[in-house]
Amino acid sequence: MDLIPLAISLGDPAGIGPEIAAKAWAARAVQNLPPFFAVGDTRAIEAVWRGPMVRISDPSQAQEAFANALPVLEIENSGAISPGKPNLEGARNALEALELTVGLARAGRAGGVVTAPVSKAQLYAIGFTHPGQTEFIAERCGVSCENVVMMLAGGNLRVVPVTIHVPLAKVADLITADLIIAKARATVRGLQRCFGIDQPRLAVAGLNPHAGESGALGEEEIMIIAPAIAALAAEGFDVVGPVPPDALFTRRAIETYDAAICMYHDQALIPVKALYFDEGVNITLGLPIIRTSPDHGTAFDIAGQDKADPSAMIAAIRMAASAAHFRACA
Amino acid sequence: MDLIPLAISLGDPAGIGPEIAAKAWAARAVQNLPPFFAVGDTRAIEAVWRGPMVRISDPSQAQEAFANALPVLEIENSGAISPGKPNLEGARNALEALELTVGLARAGRAGGVVTAPVSKAQLYAIGFTHPGQTEFIAERCGVSCENVVMMLAGGNLRVVPVTIHVPLAKVADLITADLIIAKARATVRGLQRCFGIDQPRLAVAGLNPHAGESGALGEEEIMIIAPAIAALAAEGFDVVGPVPPDALFTRRAIETYDAAICMYHDQALIPVKALYFDEGVNITLGLPIIRTSPDHGTAFDIAGQDKADPSAMIAAIRMAASAAHFRACA
Repeated sequence: MDLIPLAISLGDPAGIGPEIAAKAWAARAVQNLPPFFAVGDTRAIEAVWRGPMVRISDPSQAQEAFANALPVLEIENSGAISPGKPNLEGARNALEALELTVGLARAGRAGGVVTAPVSKAQLYAIGFTHPGQTEFIAERCGVSCENVVMMLAGGNLRVVPVTIHVPLAKVADLITADLIIAKARATVRGLQRCFGIDQPRLAVAGLNPHAGESGALGEEEIMIIAPAIAALAAEGFDVVGPVPPDALFTRRAIETYDAAICMYHDQALIPVKALYFDEGVNITLGLPIIRTSPDHGTAFDIAGQDKADPSAMIAAIRMAASAAHFRACA
Repeated sequence: MDLIPLAISLGDPAGIGPEIAAKAWAARAVQNLPPFFAVGDTRAIEAVWRGPMVRISDPSQAQEAFANALPVLEIENSGAISPGKPNLEGARNALEALELTVGLARAGRAGGVVTAPVSKAQLYAIGFTHPGQTEFIAERCGVSCENVVMMLAGGNLRVVPVTIHVPLAKVADLITADLIIAKARATVRGLQRCFGIDQPRLAVAGLNPHAGESGALGEEEIMIIAPAIAALAAEGFDVVGPVPPDALFTRRAIETYDAAICMYHDQALIPVKALYFDEGVNITLGLPIIRTSPDHGTAFDIAGQDKADPSAMIAAIRMAASAAHFRACA
């Protein structure tokens, strides 16, 4: 079955999103990438790339156009385009591109969504009230954030942060057994549906140093995390923990599970980026659509200098296509 | 100048400490290790190792004995010895060994201290009120914990957690500009004195996801960490930050600094163990003595099965010797 072309939202026009999307297209043959089209401001691409580009007015034109040029569904942007120099018009443009892309996927007119990086600071400045793109997409898909899972994947490591874009000081108050259970269930379903893993093995991290050292360094493991794990095991899940956080990401440990359920953003992202920086992919599980994203930021500091590495974008495109394949087979 | 033999406290007698100390001795020629002697219960070694061992009554006998047998300064232990099964007598024995070892180093009768792992849960059960061995050693050396730095090193990565053995929920309240400054100063002095780095480059991590995203995800970067960095820069230190925590440990990022100042235990230890599990060393800076330790736990689950890997212990012995060398030259 042919894959419906994927839609790539270009993210902040002043970031590296336009460049890595274009470079991914240029690498389509070598990397054997499925058809995709970009959604955003064509000027942002022209500012950083000299390859062939074709404006499409409808996603149905993407499949044919893809062979010879990067297809772009234009989102008009009234602001100035200057790589590395974000502005509020660019943030609005990025948000519109994201919204349209998600809508196309929901309508079955895109096979999945790959989102290039946005600047959260810029989005907040235009009144964006979601913590990040993931939460926005969940709302647009009518799914509660609790049931949506942000999974980061690189190499053979997959991690799921239970809390995400919140201050570290608030993490302990936000962790509940119900939340851990909801995220673990969504992770298992996602690994089954999007990765073709029949019996996913989960490892759940502790919150505190040494997983609380029997309560001496924190009680969340005893009061919250261990009961959640027991409940999941009682449901028949293959799950271990709470594992001391610093023991969960050694090369040997990584081999023992299909996904690590982590308590907070950096517990999950530090190891993925340390081990697999150039190929880290963010995939959102629990949505009615497929959504992946390269696991890096806007990189304003190198935008427009032809320095951006498209590896993570390419990995994100490939993972979206693979997930679409498994979903179609399921 | 000949190095005074190093003293290795064997840690919990039921853990892997005795085994890795013995295996390090067995590898002394291949690994070109400096002379050392063990401090602890000889029965704990006999239970897991069949090589030659010699009881010494004074550290001065270690140098000569080291060539043909593992020298051991005995700490009597009234309890049962069973690898993998810790008991309270074992915890008392580990604590006595640690105390004697530190005393010998302070008296100049040991060239430095290498501490094998203890069980904090066991130590707490016998009334130990320090968060970990590091804090105990600091007190025994008459140094305020604030001025002592626990540095973890593996490969070319060195990390310093500003807070250590505290629940994650308390970290934000414990971080102060003064504390960061004190740890950074001690780190710089330690890198100069024990590693021979004249102009150490420091990178300071943020506390929150994305280093707070301009305040949207936490204000500690703005209120506490950035001012500490500015103060350090004003003192002439080579220091950057606050760096988003998940961006600080990519392979490229690691090349740009000599030590990363981290806000909490797992922010520092997750990347070291993910990248360099088998060779991670803990070195305490800011003490009047040299102290290193393999960066792993008691591993009760594999104790007594000849499975323990001595690589980190060997790296800890080597780092202690190297630090002693740089100190002697300074």
